[in-house]
Amino acid sequence: MNGLMTARELEAALRELGAQRYHNLHPFHRLLHGGKLDRGQVQAWALNRYCYQSAIPRKDASLIARTDDPDLRRLWRQRLIDHDGEAEGEGGIARWLALTNGLGLDRDYVISKRGALAATRFAVEAYVHFVREQSLLEAVASSLTELFSTTIISERVSGMLAGYSFIDRETLAYFNARLTQAPRDADFALEYVKREARSPEQQQAVLGALAFKCDVLWAQLDALYHAYVEPGHIPPGAFRPGETVR
Amino acid sequence: MNGLMTARELEAALRELGAQRYHNLHPFHRLLHGGKLDRGQVQAWALNRYCYQSAIPRKDASLIARTDDPDLRRLWRQRLIDHDGEAEGEGGIARWLALTNGLGLDRDYVISKRGALAATRFAVEAYVHFVREQSLLEAVASSLTELFSTTIISERVSGMLAGYSFIDRETLAYFNARLTQAPRDADFALEYVKREARSPEQQQAVLGALAFKCDVLWAQLDALYHAYVEPGHIPPGAFRPGETVR
Repeated sequence: MNGLMTARELEAALRELGAQRYHNLHPFHRLLHGGKLDRGQVQAWALNRYCYQSAIPRKDASLIARTDDPDLRRLWRQRLIDHDGEAEGEGGIARWLALTNGLGLDRDYVISKRGALAATRFAVEAYVHFVREQSLLEAVASSLTELFSTTIISERVSGMLAGYSFIDRETLAYFNARLTQAPRDADFALEYVKREARSPEQQQAVLGALAFKCDVLWAQLDALYHAYVEPGHIPPGAFRPGETVR
Repeated sequence: MNGLMTARELEAALRELGAQRYHNLHPFHRLLHGGKLDRGQVQAWALNRYCYQSAIPRKDASLIARTDDPDLRRLWRQRLIDHDGEAEGEGGIARWLALTNGLGLDRDYVISKRGALAATRFAVEAYVHFVREQSLLEAVASSLTELFSTTIISERVSGMLAGYSFIDRETLAYFNARLTQAPRDADFALEYVKREARSPEQQQAVLGALAFKCDVLWAQLDALYHAYVEPGHIPPGAFRPGETVR
């Protein structure tokens, strides 16, 4: 049914999938970027998203651990540097903690992940396990949501600066770095899958990996929306705005 | 802070945790058991829950694979028999498919899990991975939600028979079997953790495993509620009532 696509057709199919399923389309993002959430809801987003951010180096190290190709290992290593930095207080995770800190959340509470939604943890760990357990090609392909992230980041930064008095440019430093990192990483991963997916089955696997990753992102926003936008649905044990320290 | 509990105190703490966090308290169950859902919503519940049911033998085999104790292996093996039966068409999973079939869902569609929510798959796989990756004691303890399942099953069977014209006793055969299987399994697992959790840390790990499992069940209902009770939130790719074959 699905024949072999040219590299260009594969890229078009990947971009089409992103246009349909990337989480910029999710109603929670429309609220977040439109300045429609209160501080507690933005706190819930930031502390849940910390679970995702902080798992990324484990995901990337799992990928590096799977390949005999020094080129791929070297290139992918940059992602570890981007997220963990060269020293404590540097890198993407530290910048994310600057965001949660700017939102008035206790640093240790955020790092403990105690207040995160179970659904967030399940989605994030599904991503880590996917990269460990599926093929290397699918592991690389699952990073391709970065193809679509620069638009959402630009919208987010301008929307949040305009919409929330409790957010300033410094708090959002994480996203500035991602504006250059994400396209560089995405270009490499895109070239990789276009080159390495040589059969229709492999091409479908690549598309499936991107769909899976879109689900990982979408499910996190569904859980946030259910718990923090619709009243009365915060699950037992999860963060309750106003009840935490600091 | 947490000292060593007696076996009796540990059991009381486990029962208290269930009283607070078991999914019988979830609003989706109140709707389901109260006859408040329409057929499409009950279909969504049944086809998502199929993902959970069908993963249980993988979870149980993972546990058996981890222990050198032939007694524990033999006892736990009964769970494989209960779910997979002795031949095709027998066992708990086949009985679950009788339920989805009775609800008018296409068997192959259900088995493919294509229409299941990503959040369901993530929660279910989190459970499978937990049993593979945490300690054997925690793997056993994560089954302890069965301590609380007979009440919910009785409520479910009587509530669904009374509330839905499209449900009959035969369709609900799965639950009759569970009324005897679950207490037997739960009693064994409870005695096991009371005997084997010999330090405060192990006892806390047992409680943590039960809390984790409660989260696995709760998150599945949160996702169902968000997608199928609140209008307009079905994620891309998930089952849409009325749009499927048969």
